[in-house]
Amino acid sequence: MKRNLYLNIKEKEAARQEYLDAFAEVRPSAEKIAVSESLGRMTAEAVYAVCSSPAYNSCAMDGIAVISSHTKGASEDHPLTLEAGKDYVEADTGDMLPAPYDAVIMAEDLIETEAEGSYRIIAPTHPLAHVRPAGEDIVAGEMVLPSGHRIRAVDISALLAAGVREIPVVRKPIVGIIPTGDEMMDCFTAGDIPDGRIPETNSWMFLNLVRENGGEGKRWPIVPDDPKRLGDAVKEALAQCDIVIVNAGSSAGRDDYTVHVLRELGEVLVHGVAVKPGKPVILGKAGGKPVIGLPGYPVSAYLTFMEFVVPVMKLFLKNAGNVIAQSTNPAGKVIRAKLSKTLMSSLKYEEYVRVKLGMVEGEMIASPLERGAGASMSLVKADGFCVIPRSSEGIVAHEEVEVRALRPLEQIEKTLVVIGSHDIILDVINDMMLERQTGMSLSSTHVGSLSGLIALRKREAHLAPSHLLCEEDGSYNTAVVREMFPEGEMAIIKGVRRRQGFLVKKGNPKGIRQITDITPDVRYINRQKGAGTRVLFDYLLRKNGMKPEEITGYENEAATHMSVAVAVQKNNADTGMGIYSCAKVLGLDFVDVSFEEYDFVTWKTCLELPYIKEFLKVIRSSEFRARLESLGGYTCEETGEVRFV
Amino acid sequence: MKRNLYLNIKEKEAARQEYLDAFAEVRPSAEKIAVSESLGRMTAEAVYAVCSSPAYNSCAMDGIAVISSHTKGASEDHPLTLEAGKDYVEADTGDMLPAPYDAVIMAEDLIETEAEGSYRIIAPTHPLAHVRPAGEDIVAGEMVLPSGHRIRAVDISALLAAGVREIPVVRKPIVGIIPTGDEMMDCFTAGDIPDGRIPETNSWMFLNLVRENGGEGKRWPIVPDDPKRLGDAVKEALAQCDIVIVNAGSSAGRDDYTVHVLRELGEVLVHGVAVKPGKPVILGKAGGKPVIGLPGYPVSAYLTFMEFVVPVMKLFLKNAGNVIAQSTNPAGKVIRAKLSKTLMSSLKYEEYVRVKLGMVEGEMIASPLERGAGASMSLVKADGFCVIPRSSEGIVAHEEVEVRALRPLEQIEKTLVVIGSHDIILDVINDMMLERQTGMSLSSTHVGSLSGLIALRKREAHLAPSHLLCEEDGSYNTAVVREMFPEGEMAIIKGVRRRQGFLVKKGNPKGIRQITDITPDVRYINRQKGAGTRVLFDYLLRKNGMKPEEITGYENEAATHMSVAVAVQKNNADTGMGIYSCAKVLGLDFVDVSFEEYDFVTWKTCLELPYIKEFLKVIRSSEFRARLESLGGYTCEETGEVRFV
Repeated sequence: MKRNLYLNIKEKEAARQEYLDAFAEVRPSAEKIAVSESLGRMTAEAVYAVCSSPAYNSCAMDGIAVISSHTKGASEDHPLTLEAGKDYVEADTGDMLPAPYDAVIMAEDLIETEAEGSYRIIAPTHPLAHVRPAGEDIVAGEMVLPSGHRIRAVDISALLAAGVREIPVVRKPIVGIIPTGDEMMDCFTAGDIPDGRIPETNSWMFLNLVRENGGEGKRWPIVPDDPKRLGDAVKEALAQCDIVIVNAGSSAGRDDYTVHVLRELGEVLVHGVAVKPGKPVILGKAGGKPVIGLPGYPVSAYLTFMEFVVPVMKLFLKNAGNVIAQSTNPAGKVIRAKLSKTLMSSLKYEEYVRVKLGMVEGEMIASPLERGAGASMSLVKADGFCVIPRSSEGIVAHEEVEVRALRPLEQIEKTLVVIGSHDIILDVINDMMLERQTGMSLSSTHVGSLSGLIALRKREAHLAPSHLLCEEDGSYNTAVVREMFPEGEMAIIKGVRRRQGFLVKKGNPKGIRQITDITPDVRYINRQKGAGTRVLFDYLLRKNGMKPEEITGYENEAATHMSVAVAVQKNNADTGMGIYSCAKVLGLDFVDVSFEEYDFVTWKTCLELPYIKEFLKVIRSSEFRARLESLGGYTCEETGEVRFV
Repeated sequence: MKRNLYLNIKEKEAARQEYLDAFAEVRPSAEKIAVSESLGRMTAEAVYAVCSSPAYNSCAMDGIAVISSHTKGASEDHPLTLEAGKDYVEADTGDMLPAPYDAVIMAEDLIETEAEGSYRIIAPTHPLAHVRPAGEDIVAGEMVLPSGHRIRAVDISALLAAGVREIPVVRKPIVGIIPTGDEMMDCFTAGDIPDGRIPETNSWMFLNLVRENGGEGKRWPIVPDDPKRLGDAVKEALAQCDIVIVNAGSSAGRDDYTVHVLRELGEVLVHGVAVKPGKPVILGKAGGKPVIGLPGYPVSAYLTFMEFVVPVMKLFLKNAGNVIAQSTNPAGKVIRAKLSKTLMSSLKYEEYVRVKLGMVEGEMIASPLERGAGASMSLVKADGFCVIPRSSEGIVAHEEVEVRALRPLEQIEKTLVVIGSHDIILDVINDMMLERQTGMSLSSTHVGSLSGLIALRKREAHLAPSHLLCEEDGSYNTAVVREMFPEGEMAIIKGVRRRQGFLVKKGNPKGIRQITDITPDVRYINRQKGAGTRVLFDYLLRKNGMKPEEITGYENEAATHMSVAVAVQKNNADTGMGIYSCAKVLGLDFVDVSFEEYDFVTWKTCLELPYIKEFLKVIRSSEFRARLESLGGYTCEETGEVRFV
C-alpha cells in the first residue's frame, strides 16, 4: 500500500498567499459582447457615448411646433391665431422639431377655432420651450459607465441610447472541473445507483459555485482512478480553461493520484492546509495555470472552493465583490453572535463550524450544526460559519463569536428559533410559514426535549418542542416546565398527539411486540440523553424491571427519529423507538407503544412575537391538519391551544 | 386631431390595488426542471429526499475495514496482529463497508509488520468506528428544501445526493414586450439612425428588468402606429405570454392607439396615474391577462415598470423579494437622508426624484439629479429615489427625507462626494478610483463652482471643484475660499490648469476671435449662475464694456461644458464658453481665451478621509497625467499639491 504523505501542512492564509503570488501576472481580460446581452456583466473599461441623445431637438410634449417669434404679443385680451403650415405643424412627444420651428406649445394651451387648420393662443412662447434640446440626456463622448461597473437593465438602455451596441466586458474565467474516482457514478445515470457506488455530486456544486462567483464552469465526465487518464484529462482541461479543479483524489489514500499527476505536469506548491474540514487540498501550477485538487467530502469541497478557488478566480475579475453571490459567500458580512454550546477544536487546524443563527430577546444566537465533513445538509441548513482559529482549543458556550453570515440579517431577524425535540412536522410548519410569504420562517435544531427547555431558559430559543412524560401521573410537559420554570412565566402551546413505538424492519423479523422482546440478540438504536423518546424508553425499561446494560446498543445514539428509522432500515440496528410518521416514510413496520403529547413550550411574553403569531396561525389551520393526516400517526384535538403554566 | 383624454387620473396606490384585484385568481405555477439547471430558481413546493446519503455504511477514513469483535483486547502491552482477508480489508474514505466488517481503523493507527498482508494494532475498536452510517447526511423522505427557497450551488449538490434529479420550480412569468411608434427604429439596425428617427431602447431595458425581477422577456419587433397591426401584435403576445407590455403610445397624442386597441380586445381599468414621471400609464386586461401600456420616456418607462409591472409579475412568483435584483429595486432599503436642495413639486402628482447619496460628516446627504423624464443617464447615475407625496408642494432643503436606495449602503459609505464645477476629468478620476478596486468611488454633481463651495460649507460634500477668478489679481479660488471660510480651516488641492475659450462650429462660420465678436446675430449659450465659466464670461463682458442684454441667448443656461458643446454642435447656439477637451470630444473648433486653474476645495480635516487619500493617489499618478494628455487642453504642473487657506 503506497500512501502519500502531506509534506508539510500550511496555515491557510500563508498557503493562499503563496499560491496567489505564483499567479501575480494574471490580469482580468476583456471581451466585446452585444450590449443587449450584457446584463450582470462587468465593464472592462470606461464606456463613452458614441452619439448624443436626443440626437436632434425634439418635442417634449404633444401639441404644435411653432416659430417662437410668431407668438409674440399673444395675451388673453389679444389672442393670436396660428395657421397650419405657416405658423405651426402638429407635433407629438418625441417628434423631431423641424426647422424653422423652434418651440412647442402644449395641446392643453391651444384653443380650437371653427376653421380647420388653425388654433388660437393667449400667451407667447420662447425658443426651445417644451423642446428637448439635442444632447439633453447624453452628449457624444461623455462617459456613460466607468470600468468595473456591473451592468443593470437601466444601463443597457442608456448605452443603446448613447449609440453603444457592443461593450468590452471582463471575460469570465473558465473553470474546468474534473471529477475522479472509480467509486463515483454520474448522478444523472438512468436507474438507481448500485450499493458501493457514490453519486458524484460535487462537480455540480462546483459548476454552480463557479457561476455564483462570476465564472463559467466546464465539467468533464468522471475520470477513473488511473494516473494516465487523469493526466490526459488535466492536459485537455488546461488547454481549454483558465483554472482546473480536480476532485477528489487529493487526500493521501491508495488511489489518490492527483498529487503525482500534478507533479508530472507541473509543480505542487501546497499539499495539505491546516483547516478543518478541508485539510487535503492540493494547490498546483501546470502550463502556467492554477490546478487545484479539492477534497471529496462535500463540506470540505465547499470550504476549500471558497477559500482557494474563489480568490484565484478573483484574479481574473474586476470588483469581484460586486459579482459574488451574497447567498453563498462566506466572505460576506460578519455578525457577532453568542454561541449556544461549547465547541471543542484541535490546535492542529483552523476549524469551520456551520451554525444556525437566530435573534432571541435582542441577542443574536449561534447554534452549531453537525460538524461532519460529509454533512451536505448542514451546508443547506447553515446560516453562517463560525471560525475557530488554529491557536484555539475551542470556544466556551455563551462566549461571543464572529459568524460569517450566509443569509441576510433581515431574514435571520424574522426567524422563529426552535430548539428541542425533533419531529418532521417542524419542516412542514416551516414550509407552511414560507408559503404564506410574510418573510417569516422557522429554524429548528434537534437536541432533544430537555436540552430544548434548557436553551429556552437561557433565552437561546423562542420555542422548545417537548414531549416529556411525568412518570407519576402520565401527563406530558406540564410537570417538567413547572419544575424548570417555577416563576409561572411560561406558556405551553398544545401541539399534536403522536404515536410512539418500535420501528422494525418490514415483516418484523425479530418478532418485537413489546419492550420485553428486546433481548440481547436484538440490536437496539437509542436516542441522545434528554430526548423525550429516551425518557420514555427508560421509563418502560424500569416499569418492566429491565436494565440498560441488558440492551445491546443502548449506548448507540441517534439525534432524530429519522436517524433511528434509517438505522433500522439499513440494518445498523434491529429496532429503535420512534414516531409512526418516520416509520411510514421509510416503509418500516411499526409496533405501537403509546400516544404521547408533543407540545411547544415558550415564554408568555413571546406569544406577542409576530413569528409566534404566524406559527399559531399555521398550526391552527385546516391545511396543517390535512398535511398531518397524510403523514399519519398524528391527531390534533387541542392543537394551537395555549395553556399558561 | 383626435386626442385621448385621461378619463380620471388615479392615485398610484389605488390604481395598483384595483389592478391587482382584477388578477386575484393568478397563482404561481410550477414546472419541473433538471436540478443541474436550477441555480437561482425558486422551489414551487417542498422537496423531499428520494434516497438516503450515504446509501450504505461507508468508510469515513483511509485505513482498513475490520470486524470490531476481532480487535478486543489489543493494547500497547499486547499488540494484536490482524491478517488481510481474515481480519481486515484495505479501505479508503468513501468505500462501502462490506459485511461482515463493521468498523474502520485509520491508517495512522496501524503498525506495519515485516510480513505483507498484516498489521499490528495497539487498541481495540468498536462497531461503526470511523464509519459513516447509512443516512448520516440525508435520510430518504426527509425535507431537503422547503417551498419558496431560492436554489444555491450547495442546494444543488445536496439535492443530487438525496437522489433528486428533477424539481418543481416556480415557472417564470413570460412578459411580452411590444415596442411601437413610426418614429422608432431598432437600435441594432446597421448604420446610423437618421435624424427624425429615435433608437428604440426601452424594450431592451424592459427585457432586462424582467430578467432582474425573475421573469422571462420576449421582445416583439417595433410595431408602427397602426391600430390593426398593434392589435394583431397584442393578440399574438397574449397567446404566448403571461403579461404584455405595450410601449409607448400610452399618452394622449394623435397616434397613441394603445388605449383604443385595448378597449377593443378587452378592458382598460386605469388610464392615467397621478405620478410624475409616468402619468400616462394604461392598465388593461385582455383575454384574462394583464396588458400594460407604459409611457415612452425612459425614466417614466422605468418607474411605471417598477410600480405596475413588477407587482403584477409578483403574482406569478413566490417570495419575490428573494428574486428581485437588489441593484435596481426601488422597493429596496429605505434610507433617511438630508436633502441638499429644495424640491418643488406639484400637488397634482406624486413625484419621484432621482438623487445621489453620500455620507458626509456622519450624515447621509441626498442631492437631487435632473428631473426630466427623458434623462436616462439620471437612472444610471442615481443612488436612489426620493418620493414627494401628492399632498406635498415640495420639500425644503436640509429636511430629512426617505430615499429608496438603489445601491448598497456599504458602497454609498465609501463614496467621495464631489459637488461643484464640472469637468470631464471627474469621470476619469472616478474610473481610475474604481480601477484600483478598493471599493471606493467618486460621485459628482455639477452645480457650478460657487454652489459647490456653499455645499461644502453646509457639509454636504467632501470636495468642491472650483475655478473662481479673483478679478483683482487674476488668481483663482484662494480669494473666494478665504472670504467664504474665514476661519482658515480649508485646504485647496491643486487640480489642473485647463484651456477655456469659445466653442464654435467647425471652420468658425461666425468668425469669432474675441468676446467683442459676439454681436446680437450670434446666438450665445450661457452657463448657470455661480458657474466659474459664467463668472469668467461676465468678467470679460465688463472688461470689454459690454452688457448682458446685448448678448442673444444670455438667459439660456447649460449645466455642463458638454451641454454647451452639444448646443453649438447641434446648432442650438453659435457659441458658448467651455473647456478645450469638450470641444475636442465633439469635433468643434476652439477659440482660446485663457488658462484657468481648476482646483478641489476641501476641509483640512477631510484630508484624512480614506477616499480623499485615494483621490490624491489617483491625481498624483503618472497614469492620470497620461489620460489628461490624451484629452487635451490640460496641464498639471502642481496637480495634487495641497495648500492650506
